[in-house]
Amino acid sequence: MASARSTRAFALVDEMGVDAILVTNGTNRRYLTSFTGDDHAIDEPGGLTVLGKDVIWLFAPATNLPWAQAEANADTQVKDWGNGWVNAFADLAQEQGWTAIGFEDATTTVASYNKLVELLPNVSFTPVGNIIDSLRAIKTPEEVEMLRTALHMTDVAFEAAAARARVGMTEKALADIVAEELKNAGSEGESFPTIVASGPNAAKPHHAPGDRIIQEGEPIIIDMGALHQGYAGDLTRTIWFGEPSPELVTMYQNVQAAFNAAIGAAKPGMTGVEFDAVARDVFKAQGTDQYFVHSLGHGLGLRVHEAPSASFRSKDTLAAGMVVTVEPGLYVPGVAGVRIEDVVLVTNDGAENLTRAPKNVL
Amino acid sequence: MASARSTRAFALVDEMGVDAILVTNGTNRRYLTSFTGDDHAIDEPGGLTVLGKDVIWLFAPATNLPWAQAEANADTQVKDWGNGWVNAFADLAQEQGWTAIGFEDATTTVASYNKLVELLPNVSFTPVGNIIDSLRAIKTPEEVEMLRTALHMTDVAFEAAAARARVGMTEKALADIVAEELKNAGSEGESFPTIVASGPNAAKPHHAPGDRIIQEGEPIIIDMGALHQGYAGDLTRTIWFGEPSPELVTMYQNVQAAFNAAIGAAKPGMTGVEFDAVARDVFKAQGTDQYFVHSLGHGLGLRVHEAPSASFRSKDTLAAGMVVTVEPGLYVPGVAGVRIEDVVLVTNDGAENLTRAPKNVL
Repeated sequence: MASARSTRAFALVDEMGVDAILVTNGTNRRYLTSFTGDDHAIDEPGGLTVLGKDVIWLFAPATNLPWAQAEANADTQVKDWGNGWVNAFADLAQEQGWTAIGFEDATTTVASYNKLVELLPNVSFTPVGNIIDSLRAIKTPEEVEMLRTALHMTDVAFEAAAARARVGMTEKALADIVAEELKNAGSEGESFPTIVASGPNAAKPHHAPGDRIIQEGEPIIIDMGALHQGYAGDLTRTIWFGEPSPELVTMYQNVQAAFNAAIGAAKPGMTGVEFDAVARDVFKAQGTDQYFVHSLGHGLGLRVHEAPSASFRSKDTLAAGMVVTVEPGLYVPGVAGVRIEDVVLVTNDGAENLTRAPKNVL
Repeated sequence: MASARSTRAFALVDEMGVDAILVTNGTNRRYLTSFTGDDHAIDEPGGLTVLGKDVIWLFAPATNLPWAQAEANADTQVKDWGNGWVNAFADLAQEQGWTAIGFEDATTTVASYNKLVELLPNVSFTPVGNIIDSLRAIKTPEEVEMLRTALHMTDVAFEAAAARARVGMTEKALADIVAEELKNAGSEGESFPTIVASGPNAAKPHHAPGDRIIQEGEPIIIDMGALHQGYAGDLTRTIWFGEPSPELVTMYQNVQAAFNAAIGAAKPGMTGVEFDAVARDVFKAQGTDQYFVHSLGHGLGLRVHEAPSASFRSKDTLAAGMVVTVEPGLYVPGVAGVRIEDVVLVTNDGAENLTRAPKNVL
């Protein structure tokens, strides 16, 4: 018996008018088969999934085979890929007599594709873009529960870590505390490398915590996430010790205004462009929009960044069941930065804020 | 002034007869530019490197730009990729008047490639395979020092974790202890997710530590690595409590024999196939080779698996300055598994074992 998830996936094969779809995206592999083995790198995948009209195959290298067999869904056929996945896939295609194959062009390398075309000269290959990713954008109730748990662990860990943060500590020491508290909260690990960015480092939206010592009055951006059954938490807070510097107060108030405008705005039918604009327009009115250098938010699930995108380039539209971050920020190079991030679940008539961690109010 | 590393890289551009090489491999990006930002996923890179005849460019998204600027080598030109790296690269190619471009086909996606071809219709694109990776295979003295440190931290953490391991503990609890001890040893993190595989789980070469409780007499495979300045440690030991079961004794002795044969065998000029065969032939003579389901070893550096490969399919040849794992193992499905792994540095006339962690001798 195929699961509801598999049935939705099989429908895509029909929709694309192909015999099967080659799934090279590792997150889609996990989504379709439940096998948790990661890719080491783009040219070193942990497995390969093939989505047929009514069968899902999971190929794995010998090193991962027993693991894949132990974890794969009952309706997934697990096979040894022997001399590499390209050859194993070509054998399967020939055995099944496929003539039209869809493939994930966003995650299939030119080298693998060229070899497939050479091995299967009579097959037509159709790029399917992000069609499998789109399945993941709307969460099932079980997935929403996983995300609620991951986000709750994130909240708990943030509060515990913030209570232990001190002036005089390095960014790295605080990041280590975050890691400890994530573990204490029951997290499987970090959903992404924790960011602790202090003072001028806070002007870098992404920053690896270093030896800089945290001082009074300056912003400390903490961006962190727990991991629960592979589902990612995501939370950003900007904290400080003592009196905030005047520029921090102004920046924080500006970001807070954009955050407050955006946090309740999400609703089904709103486009990602419109959602992003809710915050961006607040910054424009302030004259600060040149310092808002990223998008308002992104989907959250088995990957930290997934559909839908809330940006001025987004092609997505919000729908009930989507889970999206809301994270406006301002970054003045060499001076300071502020970011505030919660996560919302789009509901039938609006959005529910899933984040509970406290935040400063100015 | 170009560094020695850049000079070797520039020579590859000439060698390939192209104007520039598009470097989409994230590890090669770090190697060439020193920027440590990782790729989130194959379709979500943290930056892009372009290797010219005498210039290295590093493109980054706005979120990573200040970070990239702070870390990049003095001879790297850092640029905002604006509306995505594909467009930014096409603009650069037009501005520079390039007509022949090499690209890393093993890490460039079909979607990106197709878009590049569309944007640059008069440019010829040449796949360069793993030519940039090959630069990384022979370590500089500085890189060997990084690896020595990472391996030393790994040894120290293993001994400390093994001393805390107990019967009755879950695999996951022991993996958590390994993580703690890696941190205590000064490691930046784990170079890959630690494997703790006990009893029948040890028959899975790769295994995510779970709730299985460690028992007396059974094998416990611990495969772990520290991380130092991005350089990866790698170590495997098979331990047990109480009296080893008879099948464990036999399997351990068999793996030990293959390990002992291989550990001193590496030398410059030996092919990866020949090196792998040193261990494989021992297993063949025992009649156990069907249970040796992976290769003997792999290069170690900024990635846990890199050139050279020591396998029966390897096309590499050992050379002085290469750092390679030596990790024979046997895996009897449903029963047990044993693996022993040290790391060697190929020298001018043989190999130096860089691993010091104690191991059982039977």
